[in-house]
Amino acid sequence: MEKNVQISMLCEIYGKLLTKKQLDILENYYDKDLSLSEIAENEKITRQAVRDNLKNGENNLLEYESRLGLMEKTLSQEKSIEEILKQIEEVNEKDAMKLLQTIKTKLRNLF
Amino acid sequence: MEKNVQISMLCEIYGKLLTKKQLDILENYYDKDLSLSEIAENEKITRQAVRDNLKNGENNLLEYESRLGLMEKTLSQEKSIEEILKQIEEVNEKDAMKLLQTIKTKLRNLF
Repeated sequence: MEKNVQISMLCEIYGKLLTKKQLDILENYYDKDLSLSEIAENEKITRQAVRDNLKNGENNLLEYESRLGLMEKTLSQEKSIEEILKQIEEVNEKDAMKLLQTIKTKLRNLF
Repeated sequence: MEKNVQISMLCEIYGKLLTKKQLDILENYYDKDLSLSEIAENEKITRQAVRDNLKNGENNLLEYESRLGLMEKTLSQEKSIEEILKQIEEVNEKDAMKLLQTIKTKLRNLF
């Protein structure tokens, strides 16, 4: 996974555990593609302070993920759901009951 | 939801963000039903220290939930899955294709 995609996803899951400033800076940098200089100007801090906030914010997000693993869990659940959706798209009437049983098993293992 | 069920579930989700001692004490108290005195003896601390660890641990868990809301989200997803499983149990062959379309919509709204 690309770093900006990874950090955006971690922000979505754990962002509210960061300080408001860390989250703002991470979102401006990774989601909105602002430069360090633009963020520094908006936040009225130095570029080095932006860099420090980015680094600390990223480290905190990675630490939360290493402890709770919620991004990995969510990705795995989403993959299972995508597989089921694809199977539903492709099924024909005679296999519908069989597919329902397959779905039952997959959903039971989702959590 | 009863308090011990709620705290157990919060421990399962956020427990790894607590200190090891807080988590041990919460699990011993809420999952294993040990008394304050028994925990105090095991941990070689006073009953008041057990009480403080319980209170702080609970407050931390509730704070994580108020910020991230993962217990609420999980409960709601599990409820949707349970509904689908029940519908699969009860369906007959002529409604199978229709149920698959219903499932598709529900699963798309799961995340």
